[in-house]
Amino acid sequence: MRALVLTTTGPVVQDHPDPLPVSGEALLRPLLVGVCATDLELCRGYMGFTGVLGHELVAVVEQADDPAWVGRRVVGEINCPCGACTTCLAGRPTHCPHRTTLGIDGRDGCFAERVLLPQANLHLVPDGVSDEAAVFVEPLAAACRVLEQLHLHPSSRVVVLGAGRLGQLVARVLALTGAQIQAVDLAPSRLALLPVGIEPVLASDASALAGADVVVECTGHRDGLALASTLVRPCGTLVLKTTVADPAAPPVVPWVIHEITVLGSRCGPFAPALRLLAAGLVEPCPLISATLPLEQGVLALDRAAHPDTLKVLLRPFP
Amino acid sequence: MRALVLTTTGPVVQDHPDPLPVSGEALLRPLLVGVCATDLELCRGYMGFTGVLGHELVAVVEQADDPAWVGRRVVGEINCPCGACTTCLAGRPTHCPHRTTLGIDGRDGCFAERVLLPQANLHLVPDGVSDEAAVFVEPLAAACRVLEQLHLHPSSRVVVLGAGRLGQLVARVLALTGAQIQAVDLAPSRLALLPVGIEPVLASDASALAGADVVVECTGHRDGLALASTLVRPCGTLVLKTTVADPAAPPVVPWVIHEITVLGSRCGPFAPALRLLAAGLVEPCPLISATLPLEQGVLALDRAAHPDTLKVLLRPFP
Repeated sequence: MRALVLTTTGPVVQDHPDPLPVSGEALLRPLLVGVCATDLELCRGYMGFTGVLGHELVAVVEQADDPAWVGRRVVGEINCPCGACTTCLAGRPTHCPHRTTLGIDGRDGCFAERVLLPQANLHLVPDGVSDEAAVFVEPLAAACRVLEQLHLHPSSRVVVLGAGRLGQLVARVLALTGAQIQAVDLAPSRLALLPVGIEPVLASDASALAGADVVVECTGHRDGLALASTLVRPCGTLVLKTTVADPAAPPVVPWVIHEITVLGSRCGPFAPALRLLAAGLVEPCPLISATLPLEQGVLALDRAAHPDTLKVLLRPFP
Repeated sequence: MRALVLTTTGPVVQDHPDPLPVSGEALLRPLLVGVCATDLELCRGYMGFTGVLGHELVAVVEQADDPAWVGRRVVGEINCPCGACTTCLAGRPTHCPHRTTLGIDGRDGCFAERVLLPQANLHLVPDGVSDEAAVFVEPLAAACRVLEQLHLHPSSRVVVLGAGRLGQLVARVLALTGAQIQAVDLAPSRLALLPVGIEPVLASDASALAGADVVVECTGHRDGLALASTLVRPCGTLVLKTTVADPAAPPVVPWVIHEITVLGSRCGPFAPALRLLAAGLVEPCPLISATLPLEQGVLALDRAAHPDTLKVLLRPFP
């Protein structure tokens, strides 16, 4: 099969062995896959990953232990836990120390004509949700994760730092609570994509937002955390979404003096993300900048790295 | 009056102008005062403070607007807020941006024969609490602060990193919840002071404690946070108590990947600290390494910096 593979010398579209089905794993045929900032970080050396890239997908099941899945349209959770260790049994399977992670750690990803995922990771996509919307379920779930970790009050003021791929989704999800959401970005083109009800703020004006109850750091830049720290009020909460290979040293002493709560936040729950899409409460499709064939996967990574680009999708079967 | 003053060239015991009583402020005669790691950090340049050092005290009221306070034995909260700004009115007076802090920021401290504190900051010391115990109220309140910020479960496993002045009190307070407390230190002499029920662990054996639900960083060292980060479980909580002038850069990427909660923690509530002392639930006096006259204040700072020393007290009127 064809696949976008991260090799030790960089990403390349090439022939790659077809995945071999094993018990417990479903064989999927991706319909659409999405490029994420993490893919770009992996290409810069984050996690030391090599193999097929990609972890955002909507797919059709070709083969599975339970034949009821075959032919169905699905999305899939990206963490593949062992299910038997103390971390799994404590109810934290996404943190299983033995886990593999689709296209990120120890498991080939979905920028390919076929991909394997545990059958237990699959979620059916409701008929009313388009492929273009469903491919956003994984990052939308990561946005929902913030509300699992933090009780956001309707009267809170929240700054979302970075209106890129993830920040746009975080801002949309948090706005559903009724909280005041201020989304900050360098690029007017990104701010223009924010829906009514979310305040767009140019980064040059960000200092006026100081005193926020919550700041969610979604910049994807190594210096985002330092700026976020200047905007949160005493006893407020900083949510860390950015993972970069070399973050700048954050201001720890002010965190103690101002008693800041810092929450690391990663993957989230798929079921609520699918419900928000099905109900039309979050509309991700305006974030699509381009859809390219898989053969142009390296170009897609380049496009996704451009500051004026939001979501780039790949279509394995044009 | 005599006072231990931090000058631009270092700490010195010298004559210092008597404080001038003003409305709202009580004039106190300290009976005993305690040396804290923050005093040592101030001498190294933290906060850029100059003036009379000291913020841990038990004292007798000499003068106050309300004559009912005069002659009473008191302890006093160290943050002096404006009471009128949005932070104060939001119920966070210890974070008032206009505050002064006793012996730390904008206000002379208590290593002196007389000191001023707002009458509103005073707490009566119950008769059954000795001067030697009462002088621990401020750091004991800082230990209680952890339980205001964090719901500690009786079934939790907690690592307290650093069994020094503050770590000893934190371990004692957290042990009252029934949680399993493991206190780590380099010095066997410090570990030997831990009461029954708190597990002493040498720092060389700390790696065996990995997977803790909560790690409280009380080392007072710039590298404590990095070690603490290796001991907390995924989705666990790191409490930051250490304030040093130059902390090492913490491992932010693992915090995101493992979804760690980091809580900055500073000053705490005096009333529960006094209740714990009055009930005999926390016994701080074994932590007293030495009591010196105020005239030997510089020696007291030197002694307090020694790794085998815990609490050093000063007696302004020997």
